[in-house]
Formats: sequence, structure tokens, C-alpha cells
Amino acid sequence: MTHYFRSNVEAMAGYVPGEQPKPGTPIIKLNTNENPYPPSPIAMDVLRTLDSECLRRYPNPFANDFRQAISEVLDVPQDWIIVGNGSDDILNILVRACADLDRSVVYPMPTYVLYRTLAEIQPAKVVEIPYPDDFRLPIAELVAAQGAITFIASPNSPSGHVVSTDDLRILASKLTGVLVVDEAYVDFADETALPLVKEFDNVIIARTLSKGYSLAGLRLGFGIANPSLLSGLFKVKDSYNVDAIACLMGAAALRDQTYKNECVAKVKVSRAKLLLDLKQLGFQVRDSQTNFLLVTPPKSNANDLYLALKERGILVRYFKQPGLNDKLRITIGTELQNQSLIEALIHLV
Amino acid sequence: MTHYFRSNVEAMAGYVPGEQPKPGTPIIKLNTNENPYPPSPIAMDVLRTLDSECLRRYPNPFANDFRQAISEVLDVPQDWIIVGNGSDDILNILVRACADLDRSVVYPMPTYVLYRTLAEIQPAKVVEIPYPDDFRLPIAELVAAQGAITFIASPNSPSGHVVSTDDLRILASKLTGVLVVDEAYVDFADETALPLVKEFDNVIIARTLSKGYSLAGLRLGFGIANPSLLSGLFKVKDSYNVDAIACLMGAAALRDQTYKNECVAKVKVSRAKLLLDLKQLGFQVRDSQTNFLLVTPPKSNANDLYLALKERGILVRYFKQPGLNDKLRITIGTELQNQSLIEALIHLV
Repeated sequence: MTHYFRSNVEAMAGYVPGEQPKPGTPIIKLNTNENPYPPSPIAMDVLRTLDSECLRRYPNPFANDFRQAISEVLDVPQDWIIVGNGSDDILNILVRACADLDRSVVYPMPTYVLYRTLAEIQPAKVVEIPYPDDFRLPIAELVAAQGAITFIASPNSPSGHVVSTDDLRILASKLTGVLVVDEAYVDFADETALPLVKEFDNVIIARTLSKGYSLAGLRLGFGIANPSLLSGLFKVKDSYNVDAIACLMGAAALRDQTYKNECVAKVKVSRAKLLLDLKQLGFQVRDSQTNFLLVTPPKSNANDLYLALKERGILVRYFKQPGLNDKLRITIGTELQNQSLIEALIHLV
Repeated sequence: MTHYFRSNVEAMAGYVPGEQPKPGTPIIKLNTNENPYPPSPIAMDVLRTLDSECLRRYPNPFANDFRQAISEVLDVPQDWIIVGNGSDDILNILVRACADLDRSVVYPMPTYVLYRTLAEIQPAKVVEIPYPDDFRLPIAELVAAQGAITFIASPNSPSGHVVSTDDLRILASKLTGVLVVDEAYVDFADETALPLVKEFDNVIIARTLSKGYSLAGLRLGFGIANPSLLSGLFKVKDSYNVDAIACLMGAAALRDQTYKNECVAKVKVSRAKLLLDLKQLGFQVRDSQTNFLLVTPPKSNANDLYLALKERGILVRYFKQPGLNDKLRITIGTELQNQSLIEALIHLV
């Protein structure tokens, strides 16, 4: 029944998310970069006292309660904020508003695979610029590609590196289209590009509550940009894209910075420890400003190691594509989980 | 900064949702067809006992817990179901998968305004076929328009009428594209087109929990169709479009048919009473199989009446467009709310 769909949709494979075993499955899940610690107890309390009236009625179209919390915590005006059903929703809105076959999507590779999927759905022209081995931002090549949208994930997945704000500033000043700085992992990093939104009307910062705030299951993200840039995005956004519970829980989670910072601090300590332990086992490990490590196993085939770990109840991420297919991406777990991983690896490498 | 956006996005105005005053505002809200009764207490109980682990982790990409409940209640296989962040998400996915400037979106008018908005965002060619005065489905004209997608809201908003399954069957058999039967209001109707999905691989039924189940604030809807049709839609759907709470609450709400049926029965009784009361005040009122009435005020200007009611703390829906600008759409409220409306109208018409 080919004729029911557009040809680009027929042709595409669809994004394959990381494996999500049912909660309760006895597995150590280090494959999709969830925070190993639970969400803020203050955010959870929102559920205990939630008024059913806010579910009976349509939610606020702009998620204003959540915008207010963002405004307070990040010191940006409310009308500089767009809220999404996860930051993936923000990325999707950007592609729909800005890109098509004549207006390209540009990004350095390797990076978040969803950028390509979103472009394929649209469809939009895609220009992929390889990162050099040292992961310096290829500014000249990115500018030359003349994207209607240029996506830079910083910190980047799966490499784990941060792009310096200085480099992003140069890029923003030279691009004629929109620069999206995807800061999904920013809570684990030393640097944010947030100041750039006040300097450039073509820069948007995308954030999520899935990582630092342990709320991947809630689907909540946001973008920060000049209101003139947001005006076009609001036309494309679904009116009621964010539900009333996410709006209230998100506000509570964001205001509980103390709790989030404690969890992040623990993850950073574990990250340093796991990096050393893996190096001792002979892994090549990249420094990371995220909650995961990109590692190259010693000798052993990465896919085989992924499968062997899975058999032992430990899920990590393996990417088939060239340049990554000799590596694994491992989410930082709790101390106990990381220890189990190391113990398993001792027998496998 | 025109050059940041695609020209169709620049040109469009954006969908304007019905006014959503903040919960707690002392207003009788009869403008966006929410159910006047609270959600199922069993569904609310889900919140009290929710395990934070299901928020820490990414949700199931197919919302399988919710699909299982739908499967049980509606007696359709799980793989015939796609779940959306509201049924608007399902409609959006359909337009993205099937329509563009060479593949048109077709619907009879007047109907749900979002169909046009979604086509403008894509952009897709739009063919609007006027309903005749008696709201018989204009089958020949719809077929002649050769839509890649044909949207039929049944029951329809704002008219409140149901399209017979016999007419939809004829339409489905003659269309070469996809027929979307948007059953947002089906819980208040005497008829469903659900059997058609087993007869035709080009028919999809869209449903929501916003109306009958009083969960507009939760954002949850679904589509039912042959798996071959769903295969293309799954490529376009965001992987994690439905959050973990909505999935679990939706399952509980759907399984609590007794409660939903009680609420619906009350609304139907109130609908019949309000219809009589309005007729006695000289309104022309259409029969309705929904939770709203489309009414033509006697003498008075509909926009003036909308404003006068608003001043008295009663919100109803006024549409500016020709054919509707002499009418108001009034959501069925509680008995007390409907009585307040009638008392206000006695002084205004």
C-alpha cells in the first residue's frame, strides 16, 4: 500500500530508540543515559496533591507555570522560553519551521541521530560535516554548508565533549540561519552557551529534564531564544503539547536545584572513577562532560562485548555506524551498578 | 528576520486555541468542550501510588500499558493501535506521513479548524468541501477531491452531527487515500465507525481521552487501524511521544467504563434539558451527539452575546468565520452551570 504515504516516509527506516525493558526487569540499564538517581522528592510530591481539575481542563498552551520556574532559575524572561514535550519536540518544531528540501539541516558528525531522522521526515536537505579526530568544531565547513538550521549538541553524544562558547559565538556570528545548541547534557558540564541567546537572535538553546533532573519518563524540555525567533516556532508547536502534570512537576523539579546538584555531583564522582577503572582494564576512554562515557574496548569486538554484557543483564549502547562500531557508549550508573559493570568486564576483556 | 523560517510558516497565522483561563478563576467555562465532571477516581489513584522509577526512565515507545487497556476495552489487537500525545498528535502524524503540496488534505466544512492548520504547517494542498445545510456527507465531491487524507470528524464540531457508518463505508470504499474518522466526541454519540477498520486498510479511527474521560489536561489520544497503515505512522511518530504517567492513568481511566458511562449519561440528560431551555428562549438549536450545542441566538448578534456572557463570567465559543459567525458553540456543563447560563441568557436575549 505504498501509495498511502509520501515517498520520503516510504523510503525511511524510522528512528530506533535505545532498548527500553519494562520497569521491574532485573537489568542494569546503562544504554540511554538516564540519571541513576530518582527525581526530586519535591517534584514527586506534586503528584500526591494534584487537583483533578487541572486534568479535566485543557492545559495552558504555553506551560506558563513551568516557564515561570525556568525564568526564575535561569534568569531569562518568560517570553524567551518555549516548552516542549521533551526537547525532541523542540528539535522537531525547529525542523518543521525552518527546513525543507531547499533549506538544509547541517550538523557535525557523529552526533544525536534524531537530527537526521527529523530531516528525513520533513523531508529536508541534510549536510553532515565530519568532526576531526580531536573534535574541534569544524566552523568553516559548517558555515559553508549554509544551513537553515545548524544543530550543535554540546555536550555532544556520543563523544561526550563540550563545544566551547567561544567557538559557538564565532559560528553564530557567521551563520545566516538558525543555530541550535542542544544542551541535553549541560547539567553534567562545566560550560553553557546560554549567554549567546542575548547576543544573537538566531541562537536557540534546547534543554531537557530527562537527564540532570531524572525525568525522562515525564517528557519535558524547553528552548530559550529571542522572542522574534520563538514567534515562528509557536506557529508550528501543537497548542497543548505539554500536559498539566509535566508543567507542574517540571516547575517543582527545576526549583529544587539543591537536589539536582547533589545527584549531578554524585554522577560526576562516579564518572571519574569509572573512567579510571575502564582505563585500567585497557579501554580507551574519552573525557566526558556528560553522564556517559564513549569507550573503545581493548582487542575485543565492541558488538560482541555489547552482546556478552546484555547476556549478563547489563545493557549498554552499541552503534552500528562506521567510526562508532568499534566503541560502546556507557551511561554512568550508581556506584553499585558501575561496580557490577567493571566486575563483568574483568571476565570479558 | 523573515529568512529564518519557511515561507509557509511566515505566511500562516497559527492555530488559536479556545481561551484557557487559569484554574481557580471564577468562571463558568463552556468554550472548549471539556467534560464538566472530574476524571475517574481510579485513574486519579494512579498518581498517589506512582513509582518514581517510571519517571526516571524513558517511557515505553508504544505506550504498551495503555494499548493493552484499549485492546481489552475495544476488542482490537494491540498492534492495531497507535498512541498519541492527544488525538491532535495522531492527526499531525497523519498529515506528516501522507500529505504535501502534491498530496492533498480534504475535509467537509465547517469542521475542526486544526485540519487546516496542520496542512498549512506541512504545507499540504487543502480542498474544503462545504457541507450542505442538512449536513449530509457530500460523498461524490469528497471522492472527486482525491485526498491523500480525507478527514471526517464524526461526531462533527461545531455542528454536533454524526456521519452514518453507512456513508463512511461508501466513502472508504471509493477513496484511494486514507480516511481519518475523527471520533473525539464519540463517547456522547449513538454510533461509531470502528468496525470499518477491519473492512478497509485505508481507514483510521482517532479517539481522545479529553472529552468522555475528562482528561484534556493529560494529553492522550489514540488511533486504530490496520497495522500496514500504522507502519508508516510509526516512522513519523516521536519515539517517546507519550509520557509514563499518561500511559498508566489512561489505562486506568479506560478500564473504568462504569464511571465514564455515568458521566456521559449525566451529560446527555443535561444536553436534552439545555436544548429545550434554549429553544424556549427563542434559540435555534441543532440536535447534538456531542457534549456541546451549536445555537443561533434569536435576533441578537452572536458576537455581542458572547461578549455579554463573558462579562458575566460565562465563556462560550464564538467563531468569526462566515456560516458560523451568527452562532455560538456551548459546551454542556453541570446542571448548575447550565442553569446559570440560562439565567444569564434570560436577561440578554
